[in-house]
Amino acid sequence: MKTAETIQQMRGHSRSAKRAGKSVGFVPTMGYLHEGHLSLARAAREECGFVVMSVFVNPAQFGPGEDLERYPRDLDRDKRLAEEAGVDAIFAPAVSEMYPEGFSTFVDVDASLTRGLCGARRPGHFRGVATVVAKLFNIVEPDKSYFGQKDAQQAVVIKRMVRDLALPVTVRVMPIVREEDGLAMSSRNSYLSAEERERSLSIPRSLRRADEIITSGERSSDRVREAMLEVLAENGGVKVDYVEIVDAENLEQVDRIKDKTLIAVAAFVGGTRLIDNVILENADQGER
Amino acid sequence: MKTAETIQQMRGHSRSAKRAGKSVGFVPTMGYLHEGHLSLARAAREECGFVVMSVFVNPAQFGPGEDLERYPRDLDRDKRLAEEAGVDAIFAPAVSEMYPEGFSTFVDVDASLTRGLCGARRPGHFRGVATVVAKLFNIVEPDKSYFGQKDAQQAVVIKRMVRDLALPVTVRVMPIVREEDGLAMSSRNSYLSAEERERSLSIPRSLRRADEIITSGERSSDRVREAMLEVLAENGGVKVDYVEIVDAENLEQVDRIKDKTLIAVAAFVGGTRLIDNVILENADQGER
Repeated sequence: MKTAETIQQMRGHSRSAKRAGKSVGFVPTMGYLHEGHLSLARAAREECGFVVMSVFVNPAQFGPGEDLERYPRDLDRDKRLAEEAGVDAIFAPAVSEMYPEGFSTFVDVDASLTRGLCGARRPGHFRGVATVVAKLFNIVEPDKSYFGQKDAQQAVVIKRMVRDLALPVTVRVMPIVREEDGLAMSSRNSYLSAEERERSLSIPRSLRRADEIITSGERSSDRVREAMLEVLAENGGVKVDYVEIVDAENLEQVDRIKDKTLIAVAAFVGGTRLIDNVILENADQGER
Repeated sequence: MKTAETIQQMRGHSRSAKRAGKSVGFVPTMGYLHEGHLSLARAAREECGFVVMSVFVNPAQFGPGEDLERYPRDLDRDKRLAEEAGVDAIFAPAVSEMYPEGFSTFVDVDASLTRGLCGARRPGHFRGVATVVAKLFNIVEPDKSYFGQKDAQQAVVIKRMVRDLALPVTVRVMPIVREEDGLAMSSRNSYLSAEERERSLSIPRSLRRADEIITSGERSSDRVREAMLEVLAENGGVKVDYVEIVDAENLEQVDRIKDKTLIAVAAFVGGTRLIDNVILENADQGER
């Protein structure tokens, strides 16, 4: 497996692969890899001739008081896991390589897509995400890129950016990977104490509850939200940031649940903020 | 010469050229071509195997009350002139192709680079420029791009954007092309009446005056500006928007003229806003 720390090295690796007739698949990550990241790498491995993964904890997407400093890092472990998953090249740049002195260009996806959900709690977060992803695309020049559905809003924002700026890359969004007990995989799960880990299960449980009552015919967003908040308050509870029921494409709130509705939760468990979501398929059928 | 109206067509032309081993040179324009644009096309022709020119009057870079509607357009003439200058493909998209419904992604070069000079009078202008140029780069995927020095601030903003976002394209900035009497070429010169055309000459004259007194040893920005304002007031005068004396790289004001100082003028002649500039070379020598 190749490693690149500079833009020039990385572009060199990608371009040699392309000259050899290979398609390039790209998995951007902040490292501390878990099964969710690795599922993206394996999807890229199946679909592309050359698989690039970036490992970069991007300061621009963290707000003041967030966990930039303590965000978990272990590049040696990441390299080992990436190689096992079939990655051909790791791009792990220093902050100064990505944000040189005088850096002053940002990509902003404005309006409804970034104002609600995580954007409300984390102003500037999606500006940081869009900027670094656009820059990584320009460096890696991938044919296909892979994102996880766990960051549902991020996936929508990236897809909009790619369309709006005509970035020459296909965006693939892959399913959430969960622990056996149902918690969505996240590098931030490593922050949780055993007790917090237990309490955090109310998050996926609230989504399963939503799915159950919708399957039984419930279509009122308010009633689904209420049922979820009940679950989130059980067993000591978690501090809910939001429970949002929105259109999965434009992220606008929906009063009645329909096909392609996104139900998204964000909650604090102790000091750790976790997110999870589900997109409803076929909810247009069986309405009562 | 090929013509493309859609993103897909244009990308197809560029990619075939690349597959044939040709480098791609790109000249973005708003059309109504003059000798300045054509000098860019000829430079691209000399340096690249396949030359693309875009003709797109970009609404995002016009403010309310500016001349978007009356901006001169003549695509047939542009095509003829472009072909004579050696252009291989024209990209002339509709507004709806570049800004589809729900468009909400912008590239912003913030801080000092866009706040002063034309940015002060035209808020949002450089956001519109950076966004459309980034998008055009993503569509045409050029190896080299060509801009005119007349839009000095635009050239600085584009170079910063390309560096910050690691856009895989070289930016070439070519000298101002002037009419025989010294007026910088501009599509907006077509707005001028004969009397205004005459008065507008005080703009290049003020720059020549600055050059003269700096060559004679003057280094005080204030005194150079005063001398220029005197020239700009002669013969009925023009309405000065700004006379700025700044560092050519970071656009910060300089008190003392040094090497690589940019002297830039913007002025209204009747209802027409014209800009012009000069970058001083070797001003570090001969200081008095």
